Amino acid sequence: MRLGVCYYPEHWPESMWEDDARRMKALGIEQVRIAEFAWSRIEPTPGEYDWGWLDRAIDVLGAAGLQVVMCTPTATPPKWLIDRHPDILPIGADGRPRAFGSRRHYDFSSPSYFVASEKICTAVAERYGKHPAVAYWQTDNEFGCHHTVVSYSPAAVGRFREWLKAKYQTVDALNRAWGTVFWSMEYRSFDEIDAPVATVTEAHPSHRLDYRRFASDEVARYNRMQVEIIRAHSPGRPVAHNFMQLFTEFDHYKVAADLDVASWDSYPLGALEEQWFAPDVKARWLRSGHPDFASFNHDVYRGMSKLPFWVMEQQPGPVNWALWNPAPLPGMVRLWSWEAFAHGAGCVSYFRWRQAPFAQEQMHAGLNTPDNRLDVGGNEAARVADEIRTVLAADADANAAIRSTVALVYDYEAKWLFEIHPQGADFHYPRFAFEYYTALRALGLDVDVVPVDAPLDGYRMIVVPPLPVVPDDLVARLASSGAQVVFGPRTGSKTADLQIPANLPPGALASVLPLRVWRVESMRPNVTEAVRFNDSGKANHEASRADGFARHWRDFIEADADANAGASFDVLAQFADGQPAYVRSGAFHYLASLFDDALTTRLFSRIAQQAGLETMWLGDSVRFSRRGALTYVFNYGDDAYTLGDIDEHSIVVGSREIEPQGVTVYRSNVKT
Amino acid sequence: MRLGVCYYPEHWPESMWEDDARRMKALGIEQVRIAEFAWSRIEPTPGEYDWGWLDRAIDVLGAAGLQVVMCTPTATPPKWLIDRHPDILPIGADGRPRAFGSRRHYDFSSPSYFVASEKICTAVAERYGKHPAVAYWQTDNEFGCHHTVVSYSPAAVGRFREWLKAKYQTVDALNRAWGTVFWSMEYRSFDEIDAPVATVTEAHPSHRLDYRRFASDEVARYNRMQVEIIRAHSPGRPVAHNFMQLFTEFDHYKVAADLDVASWDSYPLGALEEQWFAPDVKARWLRSGHPDFASFNHDVYRGMSKLPFWVMEQQPGPVNWALWNPAPLPGMVRLWSWEAFAHGAGCVSYFRWRQAPFAQEQMHAGLNTPDNRLDVGGNEAARVADEIRTVLAADADANAAIRSTVALVYDYEAKWLFEIHPQGADFHYPRFAFEYYTALRALGLDVDVVPVDAPLDGYRMIVVPPLPVVPDDLVARLASSGAQVVFGPRTGSKTADLQIPANLPPGALASVLPLRVWRVESMRPNVTEAVRFNDSGKANHEASRADGFARHWRDFIEADADANAGASFDVLAQFADGQPAYVRSGAFHYLASLFDDALTTRLFSRIAQQAGLETMWLGDSVRFSRRGALTYVFNYGDDAYTLGDIDEHSIVVGSREIEPQGVTVYRSNVKT
Amino acid sequence: MRLGVCYYPEHWPESMWEDDARRMKALGIEQVRIAEFAWSRIEPTPGEYDWGWLDRAIDVLGAAGLQVVMCTPTATPPKWLIDRHPDILPIGADGRPRAFGSRRHYDFSSPSYFVASEKICTAVAERYGKHPAVAYWQTDNEFGCHHTVVSYSPAAVGRFREWLKAKYQTVDALNRAWGTVFWSMEYRSFDEIDAPVATVTEAHPSHRLDYRRFASDEVARYNRMQVEIIRAHSPGRPVAHNFMQLFTEFDHYKVAADLDVASWDSYPLGALEEQWFAPDVKARWLRSGHPDFASFNHDVYRGMSKLPFWVMEQQPGPVNWALWNPAPLPGMVRLWSWEAFAHGAGCVSYFRWRQAPFAQEQMHAGLNTPDNRLDVGGNEAARVADEIRTVLAADADANAAIRSTVALVYDYEAKWLFEIHPQGADFHYPRFAFEYYTALRALGLDVDVVPVDAPLDGYRMIVVPPLPVVPDDLVARLASSGAQVVFGPRTGSKTADLQIPANLPPGALASVLPLRVWRVESMRPNVTEAVRFNDSGKANHEASRADGFARHWRDFIEADADANAGASFDVLAQFADGQPAYVRSGAFHYLASLFDDALTTRLFSRIAQQAGLETMWLGDSVRFSRRGALTYVFNYGDDAYTLGDIDEHSIVVGSREIEPQGVTVYRSNVKT
Repeated sequence: MRLGVCYYPEHWPESMWEDDARRMKALGIEQVRIAEFAWSRIEPTPGEYDWGWLDRAIDVLGAAGLQVVMCTPTATPPKWLIDRHPDILPIGADGRPRAFGSRRHYDFSSPSYFVASEKICTAVAERYGKHPAVAYWQTDNEFGCHHTVVSYSPAAVGRFREWLKAKYQTVDALNRAWGTVFWSMEYRSFDEIDAPVATVTEAHPSHRLDYRRFASDEVARYNRMQVEIIRAHSPGRPVAHNFMQLFTEFDHYKVAADLDVASWDSYPLGALEEQWFAPDVKARWLRSGHPDFASFNHDVYRGMSKLPFWVMEQQPGPVNWALWNPAPLPGMVRLWSWEAFAHGAGCVSYFRWRQAPFAQEQMHAGLNTPDNRLDVGGNEAARVADEIRTVLAADADANAAIRSTVALVYDYEAKWLFEIHPQGADFHYPRFAFEYYTALRALGLDVDVVPVDAPLDGYRMIVVPPLPVVPDDLVARLASSGAQVVFGPRTGSKTADLQIPANLPPGALASVLPLRVWRVESMRPNVTEAVRFNDSGKANHEASRADGFARHWRDFIEADADANAGASFDVLAQFADGQPAYVRSGAFHYLASLFDDALTTRLFSRIAQQAGLETMWLGDSVRFSRRGALTYVFNYGDDAYTLGDIDEHSIVVGSREIEPQGVTVYRSNVKT
Repeated sequence: MRLGVCYYPEHWPESMWEDDARRMKALGIEQVRIAEFAWSRIEPTPGEYDWGWLDRAIDVLGAAGLQVVMCTPTATPPKWLIDRHPDILPIGADGRPRAFGSRRHYDFSSPSYFVASEKICTAVAERYGKHPAVAYWQTDNEFGCHHTVVSYSPAAVGRFREWLKAKYQTVDALNRAWGTVFWSMEYRSFDEIDAPVATVTEAHPSHRLDYRRFASDEVARYNRMQVEIIRAHSPGRPVAHNFMQLFTEFDHYKVAADLDVASWDSYPLGALEEQWFAPDVKARWLRSGHPDFASFNHDVYRGMSKLPFWVMEQQPGPVNWALWNPAPLPGMVRLWSWEAFAHGAGCVSYFRWRQAPFAQEQMHAGLNTPDNRLDVGGNEAARVADEIRTVLAADADANAAIRSTVALVYDYEAKWLFEIHPQGADFHYPRFAFEYYTALRALGLDVDVVPVDAPLDGYRMIVVPPLPVVPDDLVARLASSGAQVVFGPRTGSKTADLQIPANLPPGALASVLPLRVWRVESMRPNVTEAVRFNDSGKANHEASRADGFARHWRDFIEADADANAGASFDVLAQFADGQPAYVRSGAFHYLASLFDDALTTRLFSRIAQQAGLETMWLGDSVRFSRRGALTYVFNYGDDAYTLGDIDEHSIVVGSREIEPQGVTVYRSNVKT
Repeated sequence: MRLGVCYYPEHWPESMWEDDARRMKALGIEQVRIAEFAWSRIEPTPGEYDWGWLDRAIDVLGAAGLQVVMCTPTATPPKWLIDRHPDILPIGADGRPRAFGSRRHYDFSSPSYFVASEKICTAVAERYGKHPAVAYWQTDNEFGCHHTVVSYSPAAVGRFREWLKAKYQTVDALNRAWGTVFWSMEYRSFDEIDAPVATVTEAHPSHRLDYRRFASDEVARYNRMQVEIIRAHSPGRPVAHNFMQLFTEFDHYKVAADLDVASWDSYPLGALEEQWFAPDVKARWLRSGHPDFASFNHDVYRGMSKLPFWVMEQQPGPVNWALWNPAPLPGMVRLWSWEAFAHGAGCVSYFRWRQAPFAQEQMHAGLNTPDNRLDVGGNEAARVADEIRTVLAADADANAAIRSTVALVYDYEAKWLFEIHPQGADFHYPRFAFEYYTALRALGLDVDVVPVDAPLDGYRMIVVPPLPVVPDDLVARLASSGAQVVFGPRTGSKTADLQIPANLPPGALASVLPLRVWRVESMRPNVTEAVRFNDSGKANHEASRADGFARHWRDFIEADADANAGASFDVLAQFADGQPAYVRSGAFHYLASLFDDALTTRLFSRIAQQAGLETMWLGDSVRFSRRGALTYVFNYGDDAYTLGDIDEHSIVVGSREIEPQGVTVYRSNVKT
């Protein structure tokens, strides 16, 4: 557990640097990220590097006892490079170049940019790879930000054809896998295949999915190039990338596989405003963020990081980039910081040391205001630094790795597939995964978020949000885990080629869940369907006596005589029209719809009980997390929360009475 | 009355074909439409045809006793053709080609595509024109789908100039007709005239209207080319096209004039979701469709078909293409089928035999699921096939042509004109025509939908939704019909050149309705105006005592002293400010606004009475239709409906008590 | 005070002209604007002028005793000119030319168009500059209409680089001023700088602001060219331009500086529909327009006109160009006309004499209907002409210039800056300025709207809506005025380069208001914050006892110890969380947020009292204005309004009881 900060020496007079470094150190900051947007200062003229200022900046930081996270500056190629190689610019869906003048104006498939990137990364890595103050590296910055993964350039199309050739070998195999016979879309050679864009009506979904996979692979390839250069010149320094919350146009698992540290940039208020939440939800959590949003991301990146994950950028106050930008409530910067540590973070690094008075982000707060006074966020960071010492003193195991008994499977391809083929306009995969996560968290459960190919042994409950493509070995791994397994609707509904499985959905799951989804329907937002548990003791199906409501989607389920003849399933809940809403076969539970929050929580509570897990009903604003020997409690609500039978002596930080925006940490050997 | 199905042998292993054909026949299907998207299989390589598979498929179907509806495959030109002639692609309003990768990627004005279409149509017609199993033809598929009528290509502009030259002869005539002196838009030659697109603000409305007329004529010309080729090679086989409900970018009457059968593709649930209906209306009829939507289209296409119209594609279950795609209630596929027959259909053909597991429409249900089991829709089709035999046995005249006593005038140019020149953003011609239709249907009336140039003798009530351009002879034909005639607002408000008539609206109508519309206003959605009948006995104009409400539009009416000096009119209803809302002169009724549904129905009920028509108040969910000696009753509602004084012996199908989604057919000689 | 009309002889047969002129004169019209869209008739063939018809038209008007406002026809270059110089077309943000076919299809930076404009303006000015009937000139028509100020053409970019070079001298100075070091956006020469468009995410805000300033300057330069040509050939005739209400893409002050008359085009109903007002507000004032909207614009243009301002185009009935177009209530055309005179207008000129039956604006009413009968608006204009005679007879000073005791500062750059850098999506400068204006008007106050560099002596209350950039000398001018000064939030929040001031906001204001805005937040539309006056006597901060509510924005204020050590401020109102909402230091009042209408009015009432101004509470529908010795009262409401202690003999027009849509004028020496 340690604090960091993002710093831009190039934005400030050199005369301020020493004082900045001194004050950082005094505040309790241990690491400083620099230079990710500094290309135009490092190489102001083609081929002529100006290392002087950067040498001095790093020396100043190192001399103050700070560790530097050095970045490659490839997120912002300078104007002279673009003018020399206009093909660097990505091409939008409208066929036009996305121009210079902000950032991320490069195409992952541009050969010119690949070469230019190799050159600047090598230069930076050679120069600083073995500098004593440089302890870590970051590649580029926020891959995928501003929808920059997918480009429709000739270079991208050319590489896509190669990618297809490598995948399918023959164009006939591709035609079969995609089903291009439909609408006479058959190809006679790979060279006939374009990007799936600007078509008269929707382009072929398998074509679109492969284009998304290809574009994702291009990001991984580009990152890998940078990692290899860094490792060659800076052995032993861990390499990180800062993923951006829910920027899911590429497979974060694949990029993380080449890194040492998966970090992410946590902006709880901006995310609340920009994501799928309804206006009343946005108003409810206006100045705190949604209580499960940062946690969900912590658990996502913890699951893909070899070393403890980091928060590379932590929101320190109001930001500038959401449609509306409220100010965090006093205490929230501290709460968010502790929440990250409670979920396993190795470092929380604030963005940024001081608010810049110019350019696009001049309204983005820092730990200090532009006139160089410590802001609220800075004061709260200082308090966190103090508290870290208390916590580390209280528990030798405070930095322990986390392993939960509940796993939630999270998949990037699922997002792309449902985006391409939603069938209902609001079928939003991250939203549904998040709703399952929040239901588990409202029950007081800690959750590991894992990829579909993760080892599953040891889990007692595994929750699988709608997972269209079920890998061949998943069913066996789930079965051997011994866990209670919950599947969302549409699981197993597609093959990897984006076709309907020959045995109909749930496809491969039929071996353990002998179902046949013979029909589906999507539901518009002003339509819900009543759901009733079969054991609810209610006499009839009146909607007024429903146990809850289904939304968005319904799978129509029947027993599949062909599948696993020996197996059977029980219908545990029904829709008002008698169709099964929730069925179970042994340890496997299948939900035919997406339920309202209360019903989902109630259902997960039952299954957790069957898994032998202890749950507690926390409502929507208090959350518990466990790490090492300590339990962390966070109060996102408007009212104080009182911990139950806690021994006062067990409390490390805070008190039994947790004020709004408050944090309490206690030794977990005392029961709550 | 017979059933058909759409079938894609190219999507399935040849080994399945025989079983498919046998099962179709056993189900009661008599005709099978094939090959409309099969170009890449018919001509996989330029100029080299592969007839073998198609020969065998047709033979298999014929051998099973099925009649084939053979299609030209021009809706999906293959990639090799596009690569050879990129000018085939239509150009969008954004100036960019609409690319290959889905369907309908062709420009009706492309000379290359006209030639290529002639070639493939000739090849197919020569090959199968006299095949004994081929009983009918379909040209292309769903002209106008995905907004493909209007293109902005150089080829289109070139042909537009020729079209203008033919219409106006001299550019001076065009300048006068359009009124280009306004804003210095005058042209010195036809070659100066571009497509009306990408202008700084709205392009000239007369220019836009002529471009729409031209584009529509291009569709008719293209279709005519195909029809002529088919007739030359396949004499005696009726030729159909499958129009798409409310795809009104071209004049369906003009295309139908060259066909034998006007058919349409009926997707009641998709249409409900995609059309103008308010969210609560969409939820109300979620799984049945709007009770008047399919009927309206049946009556539209009946009116333009030389032979009995068909439903070429009937929704058999959930579809994939609407924003949300609910499942039809059990019974709806049967209800929709019978409704088509009740309105005069010769054939109801389901789309499609079996759901495809791949490509864009993999979530579109068929009569069979992808794993080849009969789906709900398939079972209901089988029931319909049985019932057809019962009905045909009960009434020798069951296949009779329909001629109603009420006509509704429906016009495509009116749609374009009001789109171009709405004056109120939600002035939606098909919606208003539909609302008049539904008011008539709620009164139990059968309706013929007719073009503006239809013979009108014999009708007793003629309803004219807002008809901006009144042809010269219409007034005389209406007057000589002897019918009560109801005009919507804005009727007669424009000349054919899209100018205001010299005598102001209602223009030519002034000879029978001596009005002068001296002012108009459009009303935003949150504004209505109270309307009161003058004979309602109410003492004053209080809105709280209104008889109903006006929406969208008001014509301000006064007596026109100049027009038809001998005539006069009575004001039968007024707005709260005293302006006339409904006036009458003899048999001619003029509505100065668009009224709420209840008021429209009440008003039509009065006028029907004056026309000597018997009406019954049916509410919004039960509908009656008459064909031959039989009356068909459909229950779209949630509650059972009981027929009144019906002799039990008169019932042919169903019973007096009609369940939700139920159908009853009875001999009409017994009074309801 | 006199009436005018807009007339298009080229739209009508020459045989009608004489009668038109006679009827205009008889109606009381004195001036007639012509020819602003007549280029294609003046120069039908390149270089060949057809003056005959225009000579005759002017002669006819002059002979009838009418004064002509002659226009340059540059708003509609003819097709032949565009075909010869396609670079005339402006380039949109999508990179495509904005095509011929409507109007304003020219780029202010196009050298070809500048030359062509000089040529046609010279031709027209030479021909008619000294014609006895030509009394005034208008340049072009409605600069900025249809978003035509900003173009992204190569010509515009080229001139932008020159503009930057002139402003910054060196590219280093530009890099510093903009802060291009952020995101490596540094430039090595002016030639590297493009238009700020099509960037991956938002372009640099300082870059965008300079592009907006440049584009605005281009309009001024273009207008100046025309004015100079006119002055050279038509000495002594005042030159006007007709500004369009709230088309604020260019600085109206800068263009007006070169004119004699600032006129504007007043369409109260179209404006209500098209501007920011909420749907219920649009319904509330549907047929009258907002009671303060026309007034606000009158006061804006009065403030920038050397001679008395004009309404060059007055809405005479329903228009065609808003999404919905209602009809004005009877009386409104008269009310609007008198309101203009009451605010200082020299002329009210109706658009247009007769409704055209063709082209884009055929649904735009005129004083006469297309069939040449006088419309309601025509009758009301005749009544106004009569009443003008009464008023002029009653007060020799009726045409007096207006000088109010209250000033509202209105700034165009503020609009652009907040558009570029809103921080909250609905931060809408003209809306907030208008809300301050309407609060003052609801208190019965007359208001001068002034630019930020206006002389301020003599005002007793000065209201400054959010003004991001405070010019160096403003604080001194405000202080020396002796007025009570009210600042909206965000005032002083930016430097002229669009950076945050070194001392934080309110920047330069800190010398009189020793504040430090250490944090800001924007609030989404479903969020408000309670505000309580500190002297309200309420015991606590309960929202239920709030005095009002804050919306959109909050500045977080603290005392700034560094600023003006001797000064201090009082917190007069607070938010529920205790942050200051309204503070005061001497005569300077600072509002930390945008308050609801009632709270704003209450607050302005207190400050007006402190300024020694007498106020009256008028509610939302009655308005008072004073000019010369007369007071004008307007009733926009649904109920009659009775004037208080007015001597009946003092009434010049109307009566003490003012009917809805009524106007009363009385001599002001009697107290209200």
